[in-house]
Amino acid sequence: MIIPVKWTDECVEMLDQRLLPTEEVWLKLKTYNDVADGIRDMVIRGAPAIGVSCAYGIALGLKNFVGMNVEDMEEELDYICEVLAKTRPTAINLFWAIDRMKRTFAKAKEEGKNVSEIKQVMIDDAKAIHEEDIESQRLIAQFGGELLEDDSNVLTHCNAGALATGGVWGTALGVIRGAKDQGKKVTVIADETRPYLQGARLTAWELLQDDIPVTLITDNQSGHLMKKGMVQAVVVGSDRIAANGDVANKIGTYMVAVLAKQHGIPFYVAAPMSTVDMNCPTGEEIPIEERDIREITHVKDIQLAPEGISVNNYAFDVTPNEMVDAIITEKGVARKPYVESLRKMAEDN
Amino acid sequence: MIIPVKWTDECVEMLDQRLLPTEEVWLKLKTYNDVADGIRDMVIRGAPAIGVSCAYGIALGLKNFVGMNVEDMEEELDYICEVLAKTRPTAINLFWAIDRMKRTFAKAKEEGKNVSEIKQVMIDDAKAIHEEDIESQRLIAQFGGELLEDDSNVLTHCNAGALATGGVWGTALGVIRGAKDQGKKVTVIADETRPYLQGARLTAWELLQDDIPVTLITDNQSGHLMKKGMVQAVVVGSDRIAANGDVANKIGTYMVAVLAKQHGIPFYVAAPMSTVDMNCPTGEEIPIEERDIREITHVKDIQLAPEGISVNNYAFDVTPNEMVDAIITEKGVARKPYVESLRKMAEDN
Repeated sequence: MIIPVKWTDECVEMLDQRLLPTEEVWLKLKTYNDVADGIRDMVIRGAPAIGVSCAYGIALGLKNFVGMNVEDMEEELDYICEVLAKTRPTAINLFWAIDRMKRTFAKAKEEGKNVSEIKQVMIDDAKAIHEEDIESQRLIAQFGGELLEDDSNVLTHCNAGALATGGVWGTALGVIRGAKDQGKKVTVIADETRPYLQGARLTAWELLQDDIPVTLITDNQSGHLMKKGMVQAVVVGSDRIAANGDVANKIGTYMVAVLAKQHGIPFYVAAPMSTVDMNCPTGEEIPIEERDIREITHVKDIQLAPEGISVNNYAFDVTPNEMVDAIITEKGVARKPYVESLRKMAEDN
Repeated sequence: MIIPVKWTDECVEMLDQRLLPTEEVWLKLKTYNDVADGIRDMVIRGAPAIGVSCAYGIALGLKNFVGMNVEDMEEELDYICEVLAKTRPTAINLFWAIDRMKRTFAKAKEEGKNVSEIKQVMIDDAKAIHEEDIESQRLIAQFGGELLEDDSNVLTHCNAGALATGGVWGTALGVIRGAKDQGKKVTVIADETRPYLQGARLTAWELLQDDIPVTLITDNQSGHLMKKGMVQAVVVGSDRIAANGDVANKIGTYMVAVLAKQHGIPFYVAAPMSTVDMNCPTGEEIPIEERDIREITHVKDIQLAPEGISVNNYAFDVTPNEMVDAIITEKGVARKPYVESLRKMAEDN
C-alpha cells in the first residue's frame, strides 16, 4: 500500500519520487518552506498529492508559529499560503487546499479558539483532507472500474497513481485497481512520459509493486499500438478540469486523446472533485507551467542535446471536453455536456 | 557541409553518430563486417545513409577479397550481402543497394572483367551511388522547398538530415534547406525522438551547424504546439515507402501524421526513389524492427525504469497513404493516388 506523504507529530514525511525507481528514500520536511521546496522540486507531484501536501505544509507552518496572538497567526497563515501558492501553477488542488485551510482557520478564529487550539484544528483538517482524498480515490476506483471491460489493455499517461495522490488507490491507476478488484483482467500500457519519466519511473514501479501487468512504451509508440488494436481504453488523471470539462493534464495527454478518438478508443479522465475548478470556465484560462529546459536536454549529468539549443518545455496541455468520454469523480461518472454534469456534482459537494 | 560516410582508398570512414552532439569522432572501418556492425549498432542510421554505407561495405569486402577467381569472388559477394542484409530490416535502401551492387557485379562478370577490374567497378559504383544520393537530395530540396510557405515553422521527427543520407542536404531537412535557399524564412521544431534521441542529438546539432533556427521539444509536445497554431507544416523522411504510398518511418511518425490531420496541417514525406519499394504493395507488408529494450530503460548507465519491467520497443511505424499530402522524391512531387504517381516515377527511373 503506497502512501507517498505522511504527517508525523514533528514533520511532514515524503517519499522522494525523484529517486524512484532505484532508491526509496523518505525525506523529513520540518518547515513549510521545506514542503514548498518539495512540491516545487517534485519530491512529490500529482495534483491530489500536491493538495494534501500543501494542507500539511500549512498545518506544519502554523504548528511552528511561535506567537500567542491569533491575528499574527493569521498573517503568518497568509504568508505561508503565498509561498505555497507559488510552487506549481497548474494543479488546482494546491489552491483548493489553501482555500479550504483558510476557511477552516477563519471558522476556528470566529469560534474564539486560541493559538494552540487553532494549531490542532489545522492539523486535524489537513489529516481530514488526506483521509477524504484516499476515500475519494476509493470511490473513483469503484465507479471507474465499472467502465472498463474485462480483458482490457489500458493505456495511461504520466503517473496518476497512489504516488500522485494521498495514496492507496490513485486516480487513473485507481480505476485500474478498481476493475481488478471487480474481478476483471486488466493489463496496463504505461507511456514513459518525457521529460520527467513519471510513467517509466513511477507508474511502472507502482504497478510492479501491486503485481498488475504493465508494459512500458515511449510516448511516441501509443499511436502504433492503438492502430494494432492493442489498446482498449485510455485512462488518465488531471491537474485541473475546467467547468466545461476541458482537462489540463501532463503534456502529451492531448496527443493521446486525439489518437484515441482516431481509433474509436474510449478516453476517460479520473480525478477527485478537488481537481474541478468551477471558477475556470474553459481550458483556455488554465495556466500552463513551463519548466526548466534542462529536464529535456539532460538526464542527470548526461547531455542529450547540443549546447545552446532552444527548447520548449510545456509541462501540461489541455484536452478539449469533446474528446473526453467520461470524467470519473468520487461523486460518480460525469458525461457530456460536462458544463451541466460537473455543475450538478459540484453543487452536491 | 555534413557528409557522414566517406570512401578512402583503404577503408570506409563514418562519423560516429552515437556520440553526437557532444563528440565528433570518425571511425575507420576496415572490413565489411565493421561496416555491418556500424549499421547494426547505429554508428550511422537513416535509410539513404544505410544504402550508401551498404554499397561501400560491399565494395570494401570485395576489395579485401584475396582470391583470383571471379566465381569465388561472386560467392564472397553473396556472403557479404547476406551479412549486410541482416543488419536492419526496415530500411529498404539496404536491400536496394545490395540489388544494385549485385547487378553491377553480374554485368562486369558478363563483360569478362577480371577480379582486379571488378574490384574497381564495384568501388566506382558505390561512389556513384553516393553521388547520386547527394544529387537526389539536392533535387528533393528544390522540389520540396517549393511546397513550404514563407514564414513557416516546420515540425520534423527523428533525423532525416544530411546525417541520415549520403550527406549535404538530407531528405526532410533537405526540404527545409531548399526552402531557405529559395529565400523563404523557415524555422524548425525538432521532436527529440525517443528512445534514441535522433532529434535532440542529430537534427538539433545539424541545424545549429547550418544556422537554421531550431527548437527542440519532447515528442509528446507536438499536439500542444499544433493546437496553439505554432506548426505550419510537417516534413519527415522514410525508411520504406510501399507501392501504395504507405510510409514506414521512425516510431512516432504515425502519431504526428494523425495530429497534423486533426489540425489541418500538411504532412509531407521526403525520400529518394531508392526508398520506394514497388515490390511491397502496402505498409502491412513492411517488417517493423524491434530493438533492445535497454534503449528505453537506460540512458548510458542511468536506469530510468524498474528492474524486470516489460517493454515494447518498436523502432518504426506505418503512416497510411491517405494521411500523406505529398511524397517528395528526386523525380518530383507525388500526389494521391500514390499507387499511380509512384508507379509513374518508378517507371521513369
